[in-house]
Amino acid sequence: MPVGTAGAVKSLTPRHLEEVGASIILGNTYHLMLRPGDELIARRGGLHKFIGWNKPMLTDSGGYQVFSLAERRKIDENGVKFRSHLDGTEYVLTPERAVEIQANLGSDISMVLDECPALPSTPDIIERSLEMTARWAARCRERFSTIRNEANGPDPLKMQFGIVQGGTFPELRAKSAELTVAIGFEGYALGGLSVGEPNQVMYEVVETTTPLLPANQPRYLMGVGTPIDLIECVARGIDMFDCVMPTRNARNGQLFTSEGPVNIKNAPYAEDDGPVDPACGCYTCRNFSRAYLSHLYRAGEMTGATLNTLHNLSFYLDTMRRIREAIAFGRFEDFRQEFHRTFTRRALI
Amino acid sequence: MPVGTAGAVKSLTPRHLEEVGASIILGNTYHLMLRPGDELIARRGGLHKFIGWNKPMLTDSGGYQVFSLAERRKIDENGVKFRSHLDGTEYVLTPERAVEIQANLGSDISMVLDECPALPSTPDIIERSLEMTARWAARCRERFSTIRNEANGPDPLKMQFGIVQGGTFPELRAKSAELTVAIGFEGYALGGLSVGEPNQVMYEVVETTTPLLPANQPRYLMGVGTPIDLIECVARGIDMFDCVMPTRNARNGQLFTSEGPVNIKNAPYAEDDGPVDPACGCYTCRNFSRAYLSHLYRAGEMTGATLNTLHNLSFYLDTMRRIREAIAFGRFEDFRQEFHRTFTRRALI
Repeated sequence: MPVGTAGAVKSLTPRHLEEVGASIILGNTYHLMLRPGDELIARRGGLHKFIGWNKPMLTDSGGYQVFSLAERRKIDENGVKFRSHLDGTEYVLTPERAVEIQANLGSDISMVLDECPALPSTPDIIERSLEMTARWAARCRERFSTIRNEANGPDPLKMQFGIVQGGTFPELRAKSAELTVAIGFEGYALGGLSVGEPNQVMYEVVETTTPLLPANQPRYLMGVGTPIDLIECVARGIDMFDCVMPTRNARNGQLFTSEGPVNIKNAPYAEDDGPVDPACGCYTCRNFSRAYLSHLYRAGEMTGATLNTLHNLSFYLDTMRRIREAIAFGRFEDFRQEFHRTFTRRALI
Repeated sequence: MPVGTAGAVKSLTPRHLEEVGASIILGNTYHLMLRPGDELIARRGGLHKFIGWNKPMLTDSGGYQVFSLAERRKIDENGVKFRSHLDGTEYVLTPERAVEIQANLGSDISMVLDECPALPSTPDIIERSLEMTARWAARCRERFSTIRNEANGPDPLKMQFGIVQGGTFPELRAKSAELTVAIGFEGYALGGLSVGEPNQVMYEVVETTTPLLPANQPRYLMGVGTPIDLIECVARGIDMFDCVMPTRNARNGQLFTSEGPVNIKNAPYAEDDGPVDPACGCYTCRNFSRAYLSHLYRAGEMTGATLNTLHNLSFYLDTMRRIREAIAFGRFEDFRQEFHRTFTRRALI
């Protein structure tokens, strides 16, 4: 899922997203509740209508950004009190309020409010945190069910995902999975990963946790990751991802290709007439050279951010399409090995 | 002509330009000679190929930016010595060199190097300046002819326009026009206007100068202007314009509509569900509300700059199309009056 932080996938318009084949995008509840405000968006008919996106949209609960961006946080059983990083206004985000905001946004897949404990942390702290997250999840589910039952508008809340926490401890992940699955959601996410731990540790947590989640419901790994991460985590049972990496790195001049990442600002690309990725069929690769993208980056032209983002999202979504196809053909293991081989090629040259 | 300063019309891709119906864009020689350099562009096969634009392109001579942006300028009969505003590198721009750079860029319409004296200035100074500009124009024409005759590549220089200077003094404009037309170019531009003088003064200069230029060749008013300026100067014999106003103002949140300009950042638009201009058929107006554009501006989202620029260029190019149509139907005077009436409507409410 491309990340549409504040009601826009940065540097792109919805038409670009359709072109790269995005079938769902993510909106950040924290950013939207602060500006322009979820009530304003509800008055506009919801986020889909407001931003001109008529395909599915997943919204996070706001929790992650409250813990990483907001100021003067105070957490207790009730929820979290914080001040906006924009203007210092005080807000209270409870599990119930997180669901209500996402209902105001008209989310297709809404997420429960979870606590994201700072890592590294002791098993004790993480266990107490995941227990509270489970109690918050139950409150979220109750509010979700009430809103869904009461809804008489055209767009009631459709799906809600629970979030499994537990740090990097397999037994705590297992406990969190058990508590969360017991509540019952339309899908399950793994939270609190890709926050600084080594890749192999993340892969192990994913590998030991996914078997504890229902096989016939979507499993979503939040905030991940590199192209290799996508493949390795699909291999371990993950269905959905979101990450700012393709869009943010595009703005910083890092472009993903089938042979590995390219830093377009590097000197050799200034006179390189080839496309970013000869294997890519996106608008950027069909029409522009590395030399031109290199120039746009150096000149600080926004057009460069648009063209780079278009390419990186094409690469990510194309990778996911190729994964699905390989699975359908029963050739995922071949695909996985071939992808590793080619994606590390540039580093070897 | 939308302005593609440094090899890109800011916030847009070439596809957007085709969509709004741009049939020609302008490139800035000064910016491009500094970065990425005209030689590099020549090695890439010229500016059209480098930036992915296959329709006509006009390039200025670099003179205007040298006089407004560069540092430590020193002007004499030979040309102008200056330091880059980017890194302080010293350059020399002579009339011949200005033509050679534009040949490297593969310009379809190239401009002669002219001196742009600081205004206000005495008639004496302006007269000496326009005389040197005429001598420079003759040197530009000679270099242009030589390059065109020697060209064996696929894209020789195609057209060159002379530039009429003379400040706001009708007799000096007349003298400059006479000297410039005597050299003989494919078209003629009026330079040194829209530099701070009152609109009516500019209109008078245009009105008294255009009759002195060949009626069967294009007349180009450089760096102008507002929508009203376009109509008033077409009424006085101008065929072509360039201006950063539609693109720059878009990035600053000022949108042009048939009923006058709208500052999208103003409070009333935060909950305005209507399109920027109900009379406009551009992508932005077909799909997004003033409320959304207002939000994108406040949130500092680049997507807002893209959508705003798309609209403003649509409005400008549509205005020019309507002018051409009105002229073809023999109804330009009606159109002019109607445009004035509606374009000032918002200010009256």
